[in-house]
Amino acid sequence: MPRAHNFFAGPAVLPVSVLEETRDAVMDFSNIGVSIMEISHRDKAFEKVVQEAQADALSIMGLSADEYAVIFIGGGASLQFAMVPMNFLQKKADYVNTGEWASKAIKEAKLLGEVVEVASSKSTNFNQLPKNIKYSGDADYVHITTNNTIFGTEWKTDPDVGNVPLIADMSSDMLGIRRDFKKYSLIYAGAQKNLGPSGVVMIVIKKAWMEAKAKQNLSSMLKYKTHVDGNSLYNTPPVLPIFVVGRTLKWIIKEGGLDAIQARNQKKAKLIYDVIDAHPEFYRGAVANKEDRSLMNITWTLPKPELEEKFVTEAKAKKMLGLKGHRSVGGMRASVYNACPMESVELLAKFMEEFYKTNK
Amino acid sequence: MPRAHNFFAGPAVLPVSVLEETRDAVMDFSNIGVSIMEISHRDKAFEKVVQEAQADALSIMGLSADEYAVIFIGGGASLQFAMVPMNFLQKKADYVNTGEWASKAIKEAKLLGEVVEVASSKSTNFNQLPKNIKYSGDADYVHITTNNTIFGTEWKTDPDVGNVPLIADMSSDMLGIRRDFKKYSLIYAGAQKNLGPSGVVMIVIKKAWMEAKAKQNLSSMLKYKTHVDGNSLYNTPPVLPIFVVGRTLKWIIKEGGLDAIQARNQKKAKLIYDVIDAHPEFYRGAVANKEDRSLMNITWTLPKPELEEKFVTEAKAKKMLGLKGHRSVGGMRASVYNACPMESVELLAKFMEEFYKTNK
Repeated sequence: MPRAHNFFAGPAVLPVSVLEETRDAVMDFSNIGVSIMEISHRDKAFEKVVQEAQADALSIMGLSADEYAVIFIGGGASLQFAMVPMNFLQKKADYVNTGEWASKAIKEAKLLGEVVEVASSKSTNFNQLPKNIKYSGDADYVHITTNNTIFGTEWKTDPDVGNVPLIADMSSDMLGIRRDFKKYSLIYAGAQKNLGPSGVVMIVIKKAWMEAKAKQNLSSMLKYKTHVDGNSLYNTPPVLPIFVVGRTLKWIIKEGGLDAIQARNQKKAKLIYDVIDAHPEFYRGAVANKEDRSLMNITWTLPKPELEEKFVTEAKAKKMLGLKGHRSVGGMRASVYNACPMESVELLAKFMEEFYKTNK
Repeated sequence: MPRAHNFFAGPAVLPVSVLEETRDAVMDFSNIGVSIMEISHRDKAFEKVVQEAQADALSIMGLSADEYAVIFIGGGASLQFAMVPMNFLQKKADYVNTGEWASKAIKEAKLLGEVVEVASSKSTNFNQLPKNIKYSGDADYVHITTNNTIFGTEWKTDPDVGNVPLIADMSSDMLGIRRDFKKYSLIYAGAQKNLGPSGVVMIVIKKAWMEAKAKQNLSSMLKYKTHVDGNSLYNTPPVLPIFVVGRTLKWIIKEGGLDAIQARNQKKAKLIYDVIDAHPEFYRGAVANKEDRSLMNITWTLPKPELEEKFVTEAKAKKMLGLKGHRSVGGMRASVYNACPMESVELLAKFMEEFYKTNK
């Protein structure tokens, strides 16, 4: 079966070389006649996988292992919505509300303490990012969502929040765009967009801050310190998902690192946004301001619902999958994560031009 | 590379047919040119995987979907140590302490409420199961650990705890032994022994009890109700691990179901225990009472540490892996889970006889 053109929002497309390495490791990991799914997580060969993934992630981000720890845990980013305030919300926390996932993070934090929603674009159905945000200044932390998968907005620059620790859910643009990672005290990202398969979250945490500020009277599995001290092996971790993340990080390095990946992502996104901008009455970009447009998730609507259905059906016939918008907003969405090949994006852009000509 | 003889305690051996199905799905799931790691968890083909896994699990256990729900979540059994008391510990809970994992479950429960340790075999380093246990009678629940992976003991019959809800960590013997599953209100099992790879826990829960008794003011991801209501798709679940569990459940059914699996497990365990019992001065069974011996994890020591090292090295040369006991107790351990082939166990028994003759 030839590969589909995969525009799913997540779980999403992975590099073919990573799929092949995983396929091989499923039958035999490390040449000892045991699958990657059958090996003890205490085996030296797997410990090496974890350690290399940690080192590779830090190296891609330009962070030092003295300052930051990288851990891999299960439960999804949704569990992080709870773990962040459990560990760090003492008095109050600032949250910026930029979409459905940011809203969920706020909802979970409110169960555990005082939340200041310092800015929100809810009134315009999250079609833009809030500007000129005034942070509390004395919060325990500021929480942002760098890319809003459903609405198609993305923070292109990292906010300046002074001395307050900055925490970000980077699930849907982690290692897809260059950031000033040093600005962040905690980054979390569900793997299933740019990093690997679902079932594991990558967390990057500033160690000294964690030691100084994290609450201690918590369930072991819900304390970041447990996983940092255990080097991601406190309990049996999601072995195969971590293996795949490790291979994907090596693929990023082989492709030229984050700057090369970002340059390609900008090129890919431009191909689609150019079609949208060439026919703005037909392809109605869902994001109000061009500077807020996501490199990862490109969203638009068509003049009539029937046309949207037709678009999806005809695209599917050309093996372009996952182009329907999220059920909560409708319209169309093309997710063009790191591993989405240029060829798939070119095909989509070409199809959009043809579809415009036939249906305008 | 030929298959090793895999005696790891977990992650552990899986059926070859399941590995092959996983290998194929890693390259192409459901014939649409998309990997099982690349498909949306909302895709109908994956929803079918979840639903079939739920139905197959209930059918193997002889439970009804009206009464019980099956959910698959991340975080490992260690997260369940916290979730159980978070959801159900109101006043006090009874715990039976039969080993390291039971002790950890107790430690986590104590962070959240009153725990009555109704019985413990700690004083004999967990080399037997407590007998004639007196339960409180008015606890919110009784918690047991049906199989103690490290020490090699296993509950062969299900305790009678009257009207008090019974909760069990069945991580290391789930679907390896016939139980009266109807006696249980909540069962949880990390998949990486009998059910699949690490990264997912299977939970079987009595719905009416959960609706009546579970606390509501909890973080969404830590509430069983969230996952039951969302049918295991509240957030992005560990897609590939669930797929593998689904295939393993179908393998159990194909092999003849739980009774056939249990009969084979009894035969396999007997092969090793017979060698131990034939040479009790040399192979010193670590479990005090024969009736407590685990079908899953067989533990013994040798007269001298040098002999144990020699045993491991020579076994490894014959491609028998994972025979070293847990670092906390030492000695030897052979884990012979459902998917461990009879051929591997026969080879181990034969090797043990030879090793005895050469080294007695």
